[in-house]
Amino acid sequence: MISLAELQRRIDCGDLSPDAALAQSLAEIDAQEKAIGAFVCRSENPRAAGRGPLRGIAVGIKDIIDTAELPTEMGSPIYKNFRPRADAAVVMMLKQAGATIIGKTTTTPFAANDPTTTLNPRNHAHTPGGSSSGSAAAVAAGMIPLALGTQTGGSVIRPASFCGIAAIKPSYRLLPTVGVKCFSWTLDTVGLFAAGVKDLAYGLSAMTNRPELLPSATVAVPRIGLITQEFAGAPEAAGGEALRIAAAAAERAGASVRPLKLPDVVAEAWRIQPVIQEFEAHQAFAWEYRENYDAMPPLLRGRLDESVGLTPDEYDQARAVAMRARAALAETFAEVDVLLTFSAPGAAPKGLASTGDPRFNRLWTLMGTPCVNIPAYVAEGGLPVGVQVIADYGNDAKALAAACFVEEALKS
Amino acid sequence: MISLAELQRRIDCGDLSPDAALAQSLAEIDAQEKAIGAFVCRSENPRAAGRGPLRGIAVGIKDIIDTAELPTEMGSPIYKNFRPRADAAVVMMLKQAGATIIGKTTTTPFAANDPTTTLNPRNHAHTPGGSSSGSAAAVAAGMIPLALGTQTGGSVIRPASFCGIAAIKPSYRLLPTVGVKCFSWTLDTVGLFAAGVKDLAYGLSAMTNRPELLPSATVAVPRIGLITQEFAGAPEAAGGEALRIAAAAAERAGASVRPLKLPDVVAEAWRIQPVIQEFEAHQAFAWEYRENYDAMPPLLRGRLDESVGLTPDEYDQARAVAMRARAALAETFAEVDVLLTFSAPGAAPKGLASTGDPRFNRLWTLMGTPCVNIPAYVAEGGLPVGVQVIADYGNDAKALAAACFVEEALKS
Repeated sequence: MISLAELQRRIDCGDLSPDAALAQSLAEIDAQEKAIGAFVCRSENPRAAGRGPLRGIAVGIKDIIDTAELPTEMGSPIYKNFRPRADAAVVMMLKQAGATIIGKTTTTPFAANDPTTTLNPRNHAHTPGGSSSGSAAAVAAGMIPLALGTQTGGSVIRPASFCGIAAIKPSYRLLPTVGVKCFSWTLDTVGLFAAGVKDLAYGLSAMTNRPELLPSATVAVPRIGLITQEFAGAPEAAGGEALRIAAAAAERAGASVRPLKLPDVVAEAWRIQPVIQEFEAHQAFAWEYRENYDAMPPLLRGRLDESVGLTPDEYDQARAVAMRARAALAETFAEVDVLLTFSAPGAAPKGLASTGDPRFNRLWTLMGTPCVNIPAYVAEGGLPVGVQVIADYGNDAKALAAACFVEEALKS
Repeated sequence: MISLAELQRRIDCGDLSPDAALAQSLAEIDAQEKAIGAFVCRSENPRAAGRGPLRGIAVGIKDIIDTAELPTEMGSPIYKNFRPRADAAVVMMLKQAGATIIGKTTTTPFAANDPTTTLNPRNHAHTPGGSSSGSAAAVAAGMIPLALGTQTGGSVIRPASFCGIAAIKPSYRLLPTVGVKCFSWTLDTVGLFAAGVKDLAYGLSAMTNRPELLPSATVAVPRIGLITQEFAGAPEAAGGEALRIAAAAAERAGASVRPLKLPDVVAEAWRIQPVIQEFEAHQAFAWEYRENYDAMPPLLRGRLDESVGLTPDEYDQARAVAMRARAALAETFAEVDVLLTFSAPGAAPKGLASTGDPRFNRLWTLMGTPCVNIPAYVAEGGLPVGVQVIADYGNDAKALAAACFVEEALKS
């Protein structure tokens, strides 16, 4: 894989030109894209910027995120050849930091769960996960150092886990969703994929002008709460193994790790997350669902068919649960710095029929807390399995620092 | 003006056909649009739906709200001939309720403060206010019974006050902003304009499928807190007179009315509202500002120029103040049902150079509370001046019911 931090270091010290850094990504895309199928379209004549912390960094943009210079097709024939007028806010953040938009990456239609044809670079017989399939696969294949995805249920952390790369779903609205196709305004969150945790930190810091996100010279030893989300069911063997290995490594490296039970209202929030997601989806996709029913992706259409009777009252009650759960979860963080839990039930499922199960992700999207995936274990078939480090809402710096600690611990 | 409730009543009892109701609006538009200039474009061959609570109701849509069948130009040459692929969520809500989209109404460019050429129907020498200029003017002129606008500072309540009509800025996100051009995601709120408060209630209830918003047969007598927002400066004579008249009328009708002072942190929230608005505007308009600087509307561009140095830290601090202020304000509502305060400093300013001052509105947009404008006084030159009734976040039904009470009280 291509490390953003390493590229940046070499460019900063004059060892590598931004043009050469970009050329490396272009060569890798030429070499690998045909086998993986991570891109929907590519920029014509991409150029490296002369300045900015992300000069020379090629970035892939999930194709539900608006770009003024490339079509934005949402993975659906309903948006064939659609050209937004403007770049999404996150695309402009990248450009202002000097990054080069290299192309649009594949997305499941409307970032739901109907699969794409993108292959998992670790094992071509398996899904890369979704909905940010192309972004995760392009980074995992070493084609690009940075990609943007979005998460409404588990669409950033899950594919990162399946593809064996780092990813962050930042705190709710740390990155704006202006110009991002909406699924659920309470949940949709833009996230980053990169080779390692430091790479994420450099990317997110450059996009947001927040130096506090950069890795510090000395990594603090975190107090870790181990969470098994028993309300979401048991993990597969590989998922359990990944969490066991990550917890043991963190403990060996000096961290305090102790099992923690989440308050009941937080488990209740996990249960009502689909109510909020589907109620808002009915409004967000009203035009597509009502006026283009036949062209809708079948799995998403089926979910909308099933939830057509949801009432405003059920939605209001679900939102009230979410509010109480956020407050209860915040109190949990008085005792620990971060939580450690499963990124996915196990390794990537075989075939492309399913993008996997978001059941260990959806609570955290609803809570709005920052989540960082770290690869922790390699299962049969060379398939990676990750764990996620979760900090309190607004403490993205702490999530990145603790994820860095666990990532280092897993190396030794 | 055309009363939505009255049209609905006549259609329901078979006294009027939906087609005839629609034809009335079309005839009024033909008669008056040339003088007022409330529309950017109009639907070709609009038809009345055969069913739905809003069948026969012609609705104007502010031109920063996406429509699949009409261009959406944001009041700016940067979006000339722009055709979104989908209808905004609120447009689909109207369609599903049976309403007919009759056209797009004028908006100040990007819903900021550079004026449109729309005239105030009450006095053509004055501004109708903004940014939802065309929506307020079209309803006030009696062209249409319902129109959609948006408010980030004071863009719904202020033009309603200047034009002498009813309007509601509902609780934050009661109406989704999916497909609405973003200015500030923390603030942007879709609102409704209509002839009277009952008309708003029928419109909003039909859009949201929330029967609790409908007027009840017996109107409860509200406990009213009188708020002068002294932190925002003094009103003009006409603004003060409108509030005095409305408070006296409510008291005569049996309501308890007592002056209330807002907690200090709420005044502080008023002060930091521009920090949140401008910081988010820099991200929301990044493409327009960075890549189309010369074509940007001068007043908005000037505001962005001035606020270019705002830091993430200032933004985070402002958001923390807003959070504390929302909690403090919620406690205030333990003592009263609603608040009553100025909708604008005074009557509509003369000429079209300024759309007026949102200083008595911006706090409430940040608090996310439902606000309803009611005309309360007519100043020199036939210029109306309104007051706003404000309920606690989520209590839109209470805001509408209390506004109904004050509206009735003002009639007797």
